[in-house]
Amino acid sequence: MDELPNAAAEIVASVAPTASARVRLRPVDGRGVVIRDGLLAERQRVNREVTLLRGAEELERAGTLDNLRIAAGQASGDRRGMVFSDSDVYKWLEAAAWELEREPSPELEARARETVDLVAAAQEPDGYLNSWCQVVDPAWRWTNLEMGHELYCAGHLIQAGVAFERATGDASLLAVARRFADLIDDVFRTGPEKGTDGHPEIEVALVELFRQTGEHRYLDLAGTLTARRGHGLFAEGRFDLAYYQDVEPVREAHSIVGHAVRALYLAAGVTDIYAETGDRALLESMLHQWEDMTSAKLYLTGGVGSRHYGEAIGDPYELPPDRAYCETCASIASIMWNWRMLLVTGGSRFADLLERTLYNGFLSGLSLDGESFFYSNPLQSRNGERRHHWNPVACCPPNIMRLLASLHHYLATVSEAGVQVHQYASSTIRTVVPAAGPVELAVETGYPWSGTVTVDVVSSVDAEWTLSLRIPAWARAATVDGEPVASGDYAALTRRWRAGDRVVLEIDVSPRLTAPNPRIDAVRGCVALERGPIVYCVEQHDLRPGTDLAGVAVDPGADPVENGPVDELGGLPGVALAGVARDLEGWRDSEYRDVRGLPPTASARATQLKAVPYFAWANRQEGGMRVWLPAVV
Amino acid sequence: MDELPNAAAEIVASVAPTASARVRLRPVDGRGVVIRDGLLAERQRVNREVTLLRGAEELERAGTLDNLRIAAGQASGDRRGMVFSDSDVYKWLEAAAWELEREPSPELEARARETVDLVAAAQEPDGYLNSWCQVVDPAWRWTNLEMGHELYCAGHLIQAGVAFERATGDASLLAVARRFADLIDDVFRTGPEKGTDGHPEIEVALVELFRQTGEHRYLDLAGTLTARRGHGLFAEGRFDLAYYQDVEPVREAHSIVGHAVRALYLAAGVTDIYAETGDRALLESMLHQWEDMTSAKLYLTGGVGSRHYGEAIGDPYELPPDRAYCETCASIASIMWNWRMLLVTGGSRFADLLERTLYNGFLSGLSLDGESFFYSNPLQSRNGERRHHWNPVACCPPNIMRLLASLHHYLATVSEAGVQVHQYASSTIRTVVPAAGPVELAVETGYPWSGTVTVDVVSSVDAEWTLSLRIPAWARAATVDGEPVASGDYAALTRRWRAGDRVVLEIDVSPRLTAPNPRIDAVRGCVALERGPIVYCVEQHDLRPGTDLAGVAVDPGADPVENGPVDELGGLPGVALAGVARDLEGWRDSEYRDVRGLPPTASARATQLKAVPYFAWANRQEGGMRVWLPAVV
Repeated sequence: MDELPNAAAEIVASVAPTASARVRLRPVDGRGVVIRDGLLAERQRVNREVTLLRGAEELERAGTLDNLRIAAGQASGDRRGMVFSDSDVYKWLEAAAWELEREPSPELEARARETVDLVAAAQEPDGYLNSWCQVVDPAWRWTNLEMGHELYCAGHLIQAGVAFERATGDASLLAVARRFADLIDDVFRTGPEKGTDGHPEIEVALVELFRQTGEHRYLDLAGTLTARRGHGLFAEGRFDLAYYQDVEPVREAHSIVGHAVRALYLAAGVTDIYAETGDRALLESMLHQWEDMTSAKLYLTGGVGSRHYGEAIGDPYELPPDRAYCETCASIASIMWNWRMLLVTGGSRFADLLERTLYNGFLSGLSLDGESFFYSNPLQSRNGERRHHWNPVACCPPNIMRLLASLHHYLATVSEAGVQVHQYASSTIRTVVPAAGPVELAVETGYPWSGTVTVDVVSSVDAEWTLSLRIPAWARAATVDGEPVASGDYAALTRRWRAGDRVVLEIDVSPRLTAPNPRIDAVRGCVALERGPIVYCVEQHDLRPGTDLAGVAVDPGADPVENGPVDELGGLPGVALAGVARDLEGWRDSEYRDVRGLPPTASARATQLKAVPYFAWANRQEGGMRVWLPAVV
Repeated sequence: MDELPNAAAEIVASVAPTASARVRLRPVDGRGVVIRDGLLAERQRVNREVTLLRGAEELERAGTLDNLRIAAGQASGDRRGMVFSDSDVYKWLEAAAWELEREPSPELEARARETVDLVAAAQEPDGYLNSWCQVVDPAWRWTNLEMGHELYCAGHLIQAGVAFERATGDASLLAVARRFADLIDDVFRTGPEKGTDGHPEIEVALVELFRQTGEHRYLDLAGTLTARRGHGLFAEGRFDLAYYQDVEPVREAHSIVGHAVRALYLAAGVTDIYAETGDRALLESMLHQWEDMTSAKLYLTGGVGSRHYGEAIGDPYELPPDRAYCETCASIASIMWNWRMLLVTGGSRFADLLERTLYNGFLSGLSLDGESFFYSNPLQSRNGERRHHWNPVACCPPNIMRLLASLHHYLATVSEAGVQVHQYASSTIRTVVPAAGPVELAVETGYPWSGTVTVDVVSSVDAEWTLSLRIPAWARAATVDGEPVASGDYAALTRRWRAGDRVVLEIDVSPRLTAPNPRIDAVRGCVALERGPIVYCVEQHDLRPGTDLAGVAVDPGADPVENGPVDELGGLPGVALAGVARDLEGWRDSEYRDVRGLPPTASARATQLKAVPYFAWANRQEGGMRVWLPAVV
């Protein structure tokens, strides 16, 4: 386990630690995993059939591809869009790469190869590649690290190049990325005066480039750039130092602060650097930051980012549902970080949070039809929100695409001891257990709607190994083959497995009510509805005519009950809540009242509230929505 | 009443409507009003003895005066500070002017005259005056109306010039202002392509310039600039159109939206334009916007502005206490608007809101010692806030100074029928009742701490007139000479008044609890403490050691009681609340819990909470503060 790899990573995976990496769990080769059926399979299908193709069209329409054509001398005109829009192309290419591996598509392949050629054509002879600099102002190069996003874009280029080679074997995009990475290494390696990017992203990419190429200097550069943060590099910046994670060195930082996407991409990269270097201070910092986040800065949906101002993580317990920022990219970055923390530590809490984020704060970013997006994902909207088809800031859509195209990478891992299943979906998982040999599992489940998960051993060598099944911490109860197992850990089944063996896991996914920590002022007196890993919400659309969402309250003592499929939402299961509809007319036009003169609470009539999965909100008419519902007092 | 004035306004007042203005009430000449004693007198004294002088020093230290010296060719070097920092000088000059009238001071006068000379020296031959343009880039003139603040600064110059002439008779600053106003009129009068300023302020200034000079074109220009808003002038701007009050024409706008200070300065100007033109649509719009604000967008403190992002008024009922922006300048602008609405309509609700804003959201912006400031005035702080001595964005401090120096302008008005007293302070009020003749009143009161207000008629002609005393809407009870009078209106006493007459007003200022509209989600389940016009708060500093502000709750059924003077706060009266201190340890590190697994609420021990006036918060040690306190359920 001490040798460094000299060649390309041998598995198809978003994250492929080297043989010597300090990881307890290793990703399963993506070629061995297929999500066959169910919610996640459906999301992958829609991504493939609708979203990826729409993405290509929108990149064309928005001029994002034209920017590269102008840089390449293939077109003329003014550059359009944000300074960082090249990264939208790179994320789309990464998505296309994973998708081409998942299931060949001549149309997608043709578009992707054409785009790779375009990216290659746009590259300067010295390796530089950034259409803003090339088209708008060549003198700008490396002059605005705070907001210029040059290394951020390079990071996404590198990730796309790695994905392309891993998924398709085609190394041409990686060659472009390496040329740029080599230039960056030349410029930034020496002299701390060169600083680092205001927006982390290149760190996680450089570690993966090291993993893919075996070139240690990329890992070193990731470490160097990371170590430059936290010394007030951006003291003259537009925002405070926290925004850039520049208050204190990463290895000393115990709080997760600032711009949420920046903080979480950085965390993913730092966790990777730990994995490849074994620098314990980095892992300690990551564990503290994770605890800081999950104890006081995380939304119930897994979303992160409490402030629109600075797109920032707020103070502890500052978690307003209406002004929640919860950028879709922050959910994706959190999933990236949690996956890496899971690999490094093997702790089920990281897979739990990955699940929470995936099914709620992430999936909410895409409409059910795959046609439109949310950039921010609040937990309350008084008057509804309209999803957008493409934004001037188009970071989220292609980020959604690359995660959906690679979702199957996140289901399972292997270790010396066996196979761990973290996320449940009807799927096939083929891998090799080092201490045993090739194994194939078939998982059948209606999860997350059903808590029954059947795992069939399709094939196994005749050797003992351990099958570990995650029992989510939220589960009130769970059994394996009828025997109770503890929540918040893995049920570890060590057996001499053979073809035909079956394990039946039962997780209680019945609807339950959740209360917030009293320190979270913004949702005082409220409860939320969850069902398995799914956070629910109530939309104005589902209330009886004349009932105002602002006036409803639920009985926290009454158990919520299943309410059958919601046809308008493709049959997603509804849940019914016992509650009341209060008439707030007495408060009309008055904000504040002497407690001696409060209007009568008279007309609170009993009603049944219909709740739907939060991720499916804003898919019908525009209208109010609440995750946190006032409790009847 | 149909003649326009041809000469300077004849009274010393911040607002001096012309003889033909559509106003129901008219300001009393400021020379006839003296606040002798009490809270407001003390604030005026500290402003004079500490804050104004510190302001002059800080303008020097920050380079704000040097910028004008460089523009004047009296100094060299780089311009420092924000693009709009000239306006800090003008507001300071306005403050100095009112103060010099209030009570002569050779030191202040010398500084003020020197500064007036400097401003005059910095003016270009064609009348232009803006140090940013003059020093940094002369080509910039009129090119960045969205964010350049050129007309905004001009507005403050005009207000200072008007104040200087009214207060001291010295017309030299007004001459500078007029030269600039004439240039602006030439440039902006014709051709809507010239647009208007992204930050309203010049409107209210131009109307006052018209009032002071009798030149109708200044009023016309105010109307022209106002009418240009609301047609998407700033469609290419950094923020949405609401930010600039540019969504719909002012005469059609029924909602108050966007950047709070911009919205409220504009409203003050529009109300003035209505007063001088009689354009009813403008008044209708102002009434609708006022109702929109007070029904759903106003903080209990009178503060306005719910979002840091865009410094903006939020959606209806979006009123987070912790992220309340409530810029001190917005409170000042609201006081300006409410004063004008009061003059125009005579409605006591405007004087009520002026009072609420003055004693809470405004006074909180200045430390008790007059040395430091708050820019934003939240209603909750988990860990405390430190007041700043001077900010790079220094709009609030001199704005505070000019309002405090002119506070006595806002106590009383006259009408054909008599005298109206709106704000109670130990004071002398001398004026002339048109239908009667000269009148002098002496008011004695410990208001706002005591509700007893004695009004002595010191002199009066032998004629019948009406003395109107505001009975605040918040008063649970009030009597005049022992007879109950209705709250939320004026007690109108029509008599043949003569010297020696006395009226004793008793307003119930005993502490009371206030509940929020259930639509204000952010403070659900909480109550606030008020005492007379004063909003109270609980600071961590006043809790017993070991008691955490996050865990306290009050009994909404128990009456709060007087708790004697708080020595650390100069003897301001404290109030005690019956409540409990809850131990939240059981929630440590968990944000969300299944309702079936909540930690025991066991250790809620009864405690007494000490509350202090909100405006006096953050004057001792740094620590948490809450206006809205959870109610025990």
